[in-house]
Amino acid sequence: MTSKPIDTRYFEPSEDQMINLLAQIKDWQINHGLLLKLIQSEEEHSVLSYPVGVSVFPTPFPRTLFNRAINLQKIYNELYCVIAEDEDWLYSVTEDLIAVEPLARALWGIYHETQKAGIVQEISAGIFRSDYMLHLNDGNGAESSGSIFETTLKQVEFNAFSCAGGGHANRVADMHRYLTRTGAYELGQEQYGKERIDIGSLPKSNNIEGIASCLATAHAIYGPPRTQSAQRMAVLFIVQPNNFNIADERPIEYALWDRDEPVPAYRLNWGDILRDTSLTESRQLLFHPPWIKSQSPVEISVVYMRAGYEAHEYDNIGYQARLQLEKSTAIKCPSILSHISTFKKVQQALTAHGTLERFLFPEKAAAVRGTFISLYPLDETAAGLHARQLATDPKGSTGFILKPSLEGGGHNVYGTEIPDFLSSVSQSEWSSYVLMERIMPPTQQNVLMGPAGVAEGKVVSELGIFSACLWRRRTDSNRRCEIIENSTAGWSFKTKYAEIDEMSVVKGYGCFDTPRLIED
Amino acid sequence: MTSKPIDTRYFEPSEDQMINLLAQIKDWQINHGLLLKLIQSEEEHSVLSYPVGVSVFPTPFPRTLFNRAINLQKIYNELYCVIAEDEDWLYSVTEDLIAVEPLARALWGIYHETQKAGIVQEISAGIFRSDYMLHLNDGNGAESSGSIFETTLKQVEFNAFSCAGGGHANRVADMHRYLTRTGAYELGQEQYGKERIDIGSLPKSNNIEGIASCLATAHAIYGPPRTQSAQRMAVLFIVQPNNFNIADERPIEYALWDRDEPVPAYRLNWGDILRDTSLTESRQLLFHPPWIKSQSPVEISVVYMRAGYEAHEYDNIGYQARLQLEKSTAIKCPSILSHISTFKKVQQALTAHGTLERFLFPEKAAAVRGTFISLYPLDETAAGLHARQLATDPKGSTGFILKPSLEGGGHNVYGTEIPDFLSSVSQSEWSSYVLMERIMPPTQQNVLMGPAGVAEGKVVSELGIFSACLWRRRTDSNRRCEIIENSTAGWSFKTKYAEIDEMSVVKGYGCFDTPRLIED
Repeated sequence: MTSKPIDTRYFEPSEDQMINLLAQIKDWQINHGLLLKLIQSEEEHSVLSYPVGVSVFPTPFPRTLFNRAINLQKIYNELYCVIAEDEDWLYSVTEDLIAVEPLARALWGIYHETQKAGIVQEISAGIFRSDYMLHLNDGNGAESSGSIFETTLKQVEFNAFSCAGGGHANRVADMHRYLTRTGAYELGQEQYGKERIDIGSLPKSNNIEGIASCLATAHAIYGPPRTQSAQRMAVLFIVQPNNFNIADERPIEYALWDRDEPVPAYRLNWGDILRDTSLTESRQLLFHPPWIKSQSPVEISVVYMRAGYEAHEYDNIGYQARLQLEKSTAIKCPSILSHISTFKKVQQALTAHGTLERFLFPEKAAAVRGTFISLYPLDETAAGLHARQLATDPKGSTGFILKPSLEGGGHNVYGTEIPDFLSSVSQSEWSSYVLMERIMPPTQQNVLMGPAGVAEGKVVSELGIFSACLWRRRTDSNRRCEIIENSTAGWSFKTKYAEIDEMSVVKGYGCFDTPRLIED
Repeated sequence: MTSKPIDTRYFEPSEDQMINLLAQIKDWQINHGLLLKLIQSEEEHSVLSYPVGVSVFPTPFPRTLFNRAINLQKIYNELYCVIAEDEDWLYSVTEDLIAVEPLARALWGIYHETQKAGIVQEISAGIFRSDYMLHLNDGNGAESSGSIFETTLKQVEFNAFSCAGGGHANRVADMHRYLTRTGAYELGQEQYGKERIDIGSLPKSNNIEGIASCLATAHAIYGPPRTQSAQRMAVLFIVQPNNFNIADERPIEYALWDRDEPVPAYRLNWGDILRDTSLTESRQLLFHPPWIKSQSPVEISVVYMRAGYEAHEYDNIGYQARLQLEKSTAIKCPSILSHISTFKKVQQALTAHGTLERFLFPEKAAAVRGTFISLYPLDETAAGLHARQLATDPKGSTGFILKPSLEGGGHNVYGTEIPDFLSSVSQSEWSSYVLMERIMPPTQQNVLMGPAGVAEGKVVSELGIFSACLWRRRTDSNRRCEIIENSTAGWSFKTKYAEIDEMSVVKGYGCFDTPRLIED
């Protein structure tokens, strides 16, 4: 990387320009479904919605690192497809969690019951998202004004379950391109600004079509109905009830129905799985749409999970429901093992010396390792004891984040709050956390606009790369996993004020954004 | 027309089917901008929106009459293009209004001032909408259960100014087609219903692209900038401030920007015209975007009016503003004369014996006349005196509607309320009204869903046909009007409960709908 600095304060909008921009943005969001439902406003006949948080300007990002993230994705896909079929290794790195983490217990329980019954579907689908931040090499962190060209790409996490944000990200990219095309930025720049936003610097995102295409391919691979009584087939979206973030899931359904050869797609609430589906003797998954019980059932080709990632969902009914899906011949997106592969504990295990080489050829392993930041277990191994020392020390903990060993974001504890938090938790449960070095991104200047208001400030961004994979479990060779499809679907880019730790747009902490790709 | 009856109660949805339908509809609306802004909810950083009223099922409509309305549109276009250049005739039929109607006074005043200055743009653009209802030949009206095949097509009104509803209509047609394709109707029908909704019975609407295409053609015809200082050109949308029905205008702008050869489109509030535009010496209309005053101005090729149709808008500033637009070289959509051509008084004058033949060849005149319902002036002519007798008689007035002589819907007085209303108005003002026979549509059964709730009931519908026209004023021949483009853009279809008189979706009285075309 060169160290050529770029001026992050590339705009200074006038008041009139801001008025125009904010009006344009709100109207564009209403017209393109870049919205969230207002919680508790839904009635039978109506519902209120409001614009999801977005950045007013696209935030600079180095083009070389954007391209690197895109190119890395196929290697990451390969890694996580292979991991998802290496049940022995997965079990060895996550078995300690079974005693302390109900979700780990539930998922392994479901997997083992399914295995006992015999696995009847060898194909799995994966819609993944790998998240990165820029990391300043000098480690001076968020307070530093280091250039984005003095950074490398570091992985925050890898998601293989219910990857959200694809729909919004797709649309926000369209919006920033629209604003650029209409001159909403440009007109002010001769007078006020220092740089011009070039339309060629704003990449398109193709998440909606990319994700739908993956599900459609899985649907086609499943083949014709195997159940005589089923006259039709469909992809089944398993969703959380009363989801206010509807505009992130629905576009994928619409894209499936809109294809030249339409792929039927239905939604089913997590809590209604046992009521509205059944297994045939040969374990085809049948969906009985509640709105017409007497009709012939729908045979499900693909189960796309957008629910079932929180421990509390696995009461007895939730457990039986996921078991019913997993035991079926439907292609699961994702399978239980693929779900387990995204535990933080697995991410941490992959950083151990030599582990990546178990799954990837050396060059690929090196490329992946280049995106790793230090990750420690908090168990009683040597590495774990070292991490415990760091985590319980008010000074040592500064540069770290404590994360639950499971999937997904949230529930993190940051820096100096870690020692107090750990002292409030029984030491026997410490092993259900990992300790991750904080990624130290350079800050940029931007204006963020969301439910909480509109304000200019220092911001940091997170780039997510979406991918679409299909693979086959093999038991007849040394290679346990045959990859059928491995492609990049699109990307998401989220930006938040630098002083806020958590990056969740739907909780109001972050905004959808578009990377403005800068040449170094 | 044959008299084969059809069963209007073609569905009987189960409760589960309705739950599914209502959830699908709300989510589709959020994702596709079929929304209205919640009044007074807009803040700098956010705004609430809610679904615009829609019908849950598409309402039956005879295919032959739908096609007839489409085919009639080119003749209506011709009629209204020619009328808009026949200033003598227009003046003769509307001059009585000048004394009693401020809007008529303002528009004629602006026209005469423009004429005095010299008319510098011979081309006009028109985005028209002709509205129809089905009319039962036996005249037994809304209480009758007559079949839709015992009807003819009757015109409610012809609009040439700020024709609304095109965007929503376009999208609701897409929505009903989506619901049909996904089986949301079909699945219930084997058990509960009597007929199947066939996707081929639901026409597509193409309003957004059709209207944008008309403005783009006008933009191209205007040619290159005539002002040296103007480096760019654009279509200017004149809009009402704080319009909550944003999703009906914005899609046209987006379509203009999205064209292969993008057509710049900007919005300007009615009240800001004099501040943000200027006329050059040779009367080019220059727009000075307020967000960057120092930039070179934008020369306006086409002025598209979505404001300026209410008398109160023509205070001194409003008058001067419209005059500035009208005097300019920009192509007006519509011109002042075209605006005046849609006064109800003109519609009434066209029904007089022999008048249509002034503008159209006899067959075309006959086709148009077939859609006329009786319309009387309320002046002191013989026809007017007859109408006064009807209107002041509680019995005689039953089958009539009293309408202001001006443009647009609203402010109507219905049936038995007419005598009392007239007695509250000074007799000298009676001539500013026309008396129209009530169209008596057959009722259908449907479920309507909107801000007020969701309920099944008897409904009636109104079909609007959108068109896109361009014409040139000729002073060099007997033909005063040379038509350059005459095309049908699309349609809108609005449905309301039969017992409600007014049809305004944005006021919450009606719903956007799709005609389900039925063969007779």
